[in-house]
Amino acid sequence: MQAQSAPGLNLMPWPANVQPGSGALKIDSTFAIALTGHKEARLDRAGQRFLSVLQKQTGLLISSQPGDATKAKLVVYTDHASKETQEFGEDESYTLEVTSTGAKLDAANPLGVLRGLQTFLQLVDVSPDGFAAPAVAIKDSPRFGWRGLLIDSSRHFTPMEVLKRNLDGMEAVKMNVFHWHISDNQGFRAESKKFPKLTSMGSGGAYYTQEEIRDVISYARDRGIRVVPEFDMPGHSSSWFVGYPEIASTSGPFKIEEEWGVMDPAMDPMNEKTYKFLDTFIGEMAKLFPDHYFHIGGDELNGKAWDANPKIQEFKKAHNYKTNDELQTYFSQRVQKLVNKHGKAAVGWDEIFVPGAPKDIVIHSWRGPKSLAAAAQQGYQGILSNGYYIDLMWSAARHYAVDPLSGDASSLTPGQQKLVLGGEATMWSEYVNWENIDNRIWPRTAAIAERYWSRQSVTDVNSMYARLDAISQRLEWVGLTHRSQPRKMLQRIAGPATPEEFAALKTLADVLEPVKDYMRGETTSYTAITTTPLNSVVDAVPPESDVARRFDEKVTAFVAGSCRDTNAAAQLRAQLTKWRENDPALQTLAAKSSFVKDVAPSSQDLSAVAAVGLAALDAIAKGSPLSDEAKTQATATIAAASKGKAQVLLIPASTIQKLVDAAATGGACFARP
Amino acid sequence: MQAQSAPGLNLMPWPANVQPGSGALKIDSTFAIALTGHKEARLDRAGQRFLSVLQKQTGLLISSQPGDATKAKLVVYTDHASKETQEFGEDESYTLEVTSTGAKLDAANPLGVLRGLQTFLQLVDVSPDGFAAPAVAIKDSPRFGWRGLLIDSSRHFTPMEVLKRNLDGMEAVKMNVFHWHISDNQGFRAESKKFPKLTSMGSGGAYYTQEEIRDVISYARDRGIRVVPEFDMPGHSSSWFVGYPEIASTSGPFKIEEEWGVMDPAMDPMNEKTYKFLDTFIGEMAKLFPDHYFHIGGDELNGKAWDANPKIQEFKKAHNYKTNDELQTYFSQRVQKLVNKHGKAAVGWDEIFVPGAPKDIVIHSWRGPKSLAAAAQQGYQGILSNGYYIDLMWSAARHYAVDPLSGDASSLTPGQQKLVLGGEATMWSEYVNWENIDNRIWPRTAAIAERYWSRQSVTDVNSMYARLDAISQRLEWVGLTHRSQPRKMLQRIAGPATPEEFAALKTLADVLEPVKDYMRGETTSYTAITTTPLNSVVDAVPPESDVARRFDEKVTAFVAGSCRDTNAAAQLRAQLTKWRENDPALQTLAAKSSFVKDVAPSSQDLSAVAAVGLAALDAIAKGSPLSDEAKTQATATIAAASKGKAQVLLIPASTIQKLVDAAATGGACFARP
Repeated sequence: MQAQSAPGLNLMPWPANVQPGSGALKIDSTFAIALTGHKEARLDRAGQRFLSVLQKQTGLLISSQPGDATKAKLVVYTDHASKETQEFGEDESYTLEVTSTGAKLDAANPLGVLRGLQTFLQLVDVSPDGFAAPAVAIKDSPRFGWRGLLIDSSRHFTPMEVLKRNLDGMEAVKMNVFHWHISDNQGFRAESKKFPKLTSMGSGGAYYTQEEIRDVISYARDRGIRVVPEFDMPGHSSSWFVGYPEIASTSGPFKIEEEWGVMDPAMDPMNEKTYKFLDTFIGEMAKLFPDHYFHIGGDELNGKAWDANPKIQEFKKAHNYKTNDELQTYFSQRVQKLVNKHGKAAVGWDEIFVPGAPKDIVIHSWRGPKSLAAAAQQGYQGILSNGYYIDLMWSAARHYAVDPLSGDASSLTPGQQKLVLGGEATMWSEYVNWENIDNRIWPRTAAIAERYWSRQSVTDVNSMYARLDAISQRLEWVGLTHRSQPRKMLQRIAGPATPEEFAALKTLADVLEPVKDYMRGETTSYTAITTTPLNSVVDAVPPESDVARRFDEKVTAFVAGSCRDTNAAAQLRAQLTKWRENDPALQTLAAKSSFVKDVAPSSQDLSAVAAVGLAALDAIAKGSPLSDEAKTQATATIAAASKGKAQVLLIPASTIQKLVDAAATGGACFARP
Repeated sequence: MQAQSAPGLNLMPWPANVQPGSGALKIDSTFAIALTGHKEARLDRAGQRFLSVLQKQTGLLISSQPGDATKAKLVVYTDHASKETQEFGEDESYTLEVTSTGAKLDAANPLGVLRGLQTFLQLVDVSPDGFAAPAVAIKDSPRFGWRGLLIDSSRHFTPMEVLKRNLDGMEAVKMNVFHWHISDNQGFRAESKKFPKLTSMGSGGAYYTQEEIRDVISYARDRGIRVVPEFDMPGHSSSWFVGYPEIASTSGPFKIEEEWGVMDPAMDPMNEKTYKFLDTFIGEMAKLFPDHYFHIGGDELNGKAWDANPKIQEFKKAHNYKTNDELQTYFSQRVQKLVNKHGKAAVGWDEIFVPGAPKDIVIHSWRGPKSLAAAAQQGYQGILSNGYYIDLMWSAARHYAVDPLSGDASSLTPGQQKLVLGGEATMWSEYVNWENIDNRIWPRTAAIAERYWSRQSVTDVNSMYARLDAISQRLEWVGLTHRSQPRKMLQRIAGPATPEEFAALKTLADVLEPVKDYMRGETTSYTAITTTPLNSVVDAVPPESDVARRFDEKVTAFVAGSCRDTNAAAQLRAQLTKWRENDPALQTLAAKSSFVKDVAPSSQDLSAVAAVGLAALDAIAKGSPLSDEAKTQATATIAAASKGKAQVLLIPASTIQKLVDAAATGGACFARP
């Protein structure tokens, strides 16, 4: 079945092949599973975890231990073991057949079982007769073998339990690479026994012990997820130098950075000390992190530190390097050799893709798909993150539209396309901490995960959003807090609010989104990201407003129908009226809470644009188009309301413009054929 | 200040003496505390915990380590240590002075510090200028020294993290006794090394190891909470007999009970084996649980097991015991001696209060304040739980109105009144599990905690509810889930709902409460409480509907004002209209979810009574009273809607009756002076 949805099947990522059957498998407290075929402890744990989530998402008293096959409703068969250390490209396929009497999950190895169990969990939902999984036959395998999520644990430290619940989230949507950005200017987070000052001086006390790192790796392995560490160099490395200034290009003292942006400090590329240090360090980390790939960063070197050091200038001259890029190539090649020496293959950002780079490196593109295509044409492997920067606060639909094989990559030969290994969503942490990171990552990353797993033809945005809603709810059962925590944050912001005042804040917050791209860093009066609390409205509102999106869908449909649907008009009127009348209660609360006061102008804007929208509806109802003057005035009101204030955007403003345009002379409501 | 509230002071329990000052202490990221005077590790941990909660409730980046006094905004002074093992009646007083420049917390010992730190946390809230604590001088101490919460970990096992977060909740409202009901018919939950079959055969695998028990005790001690274990005997003991039938009055085999209600099995009171067993067992447990008090239960023996055993009958005859009560007295006295032998004082339910009982026992009254008064008159100590049975789903106001020194106890002499040590809220767990226990305990128990801590004159219900709202929100910051989890449960129940359908379910659920008292056990078709899932609407709705309570307040005020407040009338009309129109979306969802279908009749009832309420408002607006016939019909509709359905009650029904009565001829709206 090529369709991307079927009644009752809220699957995400959408499987490769789905054949709906008839009837459903009832799920009650007698439900049991059996694990047959190849046995290992990881499968037992997966079975227990599956049953535990099933218990939570149903509230049923299901036994939490896998049992024997004769009584089991779901029989799992694993053919053989997977690799001792999970590798890129291992078989993750599975088949899952559900009938009204039982279910069978078959996979070549445990990775396919992990994926199939998640599909089964997604099938289970409330029905007219308790919980049930609809009958279906699924044959599934991923499109890309590298389906990653990067978490930046440097700019804000990510507590262990936050990492773990996000690994649970990754498992739920079949992602398989956790890219751990574990060092940067703002903090060195991985304990080194060889160089203890990296964390004792470069972390501010917030770091992962080697034991914790091993815990994360084994937690991830249990979930079929590889852990690829990134030690960004030669730039993004101030935190290294606090304890080890001898490997820096400039003299210290250095400090753990607090600011947003690109910093000057960089490693010294001409000093053999640097390579000796890195040899030892990479050797230690290569043992700690078992994955075959080792990310060496390489991005955003601004060259100032190199320019400032006369010895480095001499070195450049002596080696006939005309640019700092050429010098970085030299540095990268030295580091890549060290990575190889310790048995690993290097991954690096676009900047490491230079003439003569070793062929086993993986180019991680943050700049765009173009470089990925160019790399593939020269036989280099690549992964795409450009377009998947979830810190930029884009909509799920916008990320969903980005395909690792679109643009220049679409004209690659099939052989070259194979070199595009997949993609990674990147959670840069300038403005996220333990409290709001879940709502920055989820549920949007589930849509990105579908892009990496599902067939290229799976592109229906309406289906995506419908299924994303369902998945979003399920993700809270694995322990994520992307829906519950923002509500608590709003309650904190509202402080001593009455219920009515809190409702007013909620109504406003429901249609606000954080400003997009790098606007926040570029426009805020504070730049010290690590010392600024993340407790304002902008931190509490999700990157994408569901309420605003649904309102936009309704208006778009209404306008497309020449504004003749009176039922839709009534619904829009009710929504706009609620918004128009929301301001007084919000202003009362703003007088009590400085955090609410921040968004008081947005509340006035909401009232204003709602009034404009109501006037447009009036014009439509009366059959008399808005005058040019009225339209101009309305458009100006909307334009003023569309500007970011207190780092938030009022999303329905642009939708109301659609209504105004349609209600004007010659607009969709009044255009005559 | 005798008032029970002051602007910005959402304190609960209300302190003994509160003198509001002027100005406020700003709380920002530079906030620090210092611990001076007596030092101990528990105080350091308390300081860190305080700072950690403050971080969460403000979102500020406050350093999580106590620092030195010169920089601290809150300076804590502890005069001396408290007892090694916390004792009943230890000094818990403190003084807290907050000015616009700093704050001082002074206490005789760490217990007072713990209480004062919680008061400070309650002072901090959002202000027009960020977070602040209002200037105030507080002098505080508890009215009763025994302020307990019982958690029944037998009927449903309470996971460790659930216990711990509830201990955090207890600390937040200054409770100091965790009464751990750790064995009962439905499961023996405390590991015994001497009698391992108690848990290996009597727990179904769900029990606490001794290490876990010690962990709970030290966690509680850190929070100034004593742990009093209860091993209920000679009844409520089926789970003991599964592994040790030799101490039962009847021959086995016995099983872990699954049912609701009073069971027949009982210990054999004539067999010396029983006392030998209990001697060893109590000896072991007396070492494990350091508290001076040891609860031996003693309640609800139905005597059937004794009647069925001819040897016991002979024993009764031989000892001239005419009733089973007399035989129980014999048993109790033997057990009390064993408790004393192992260095403890016995606590037991009403039933142990019999002529000749040793004077050091504590009578725990579940039957009523009468027995407590009678006991005090005879010089016995007592604690009250009658009136604080939070499993009965009463309103906070109803529990709040119960005073340990009301009724018969009010006429006790001051000396006798001192024998009333305090009270305990009891969370019997027939219908609670890990998921809904928080919302059964909180926030109502905070009101009970105030009853135990605050002066007897603190009885203003409006003030209580206003402060309870604030405390309820804060309790989520210490990790309780009483507000967030019910929402998730509703989402699970709603399954594949559209946003509009979910909103309809929420609107309905917001005005439903579980049936009261023992109605659920008495009317349900299933009686097997431990094997029945708790995933229905009745399990998800809180015991007390805030929406219904506020609606009732509004109607009551409207009627009291002779229905002349047109603004109030408009608000009531809006609410009633929303309810009247809620049913269609709910019925659509009911067709998809069997759990929603359960409450579909309540939804029809809500529409019906809302229509009745709107008719009453119409009559008032028109100035023409409801006819007798209309009133009769309306009353019948309301009566039908007031009946429990699917174990839930539709709370606004009775409020709408008030509106109908007022709108009828001679009612408040039409009564002429």
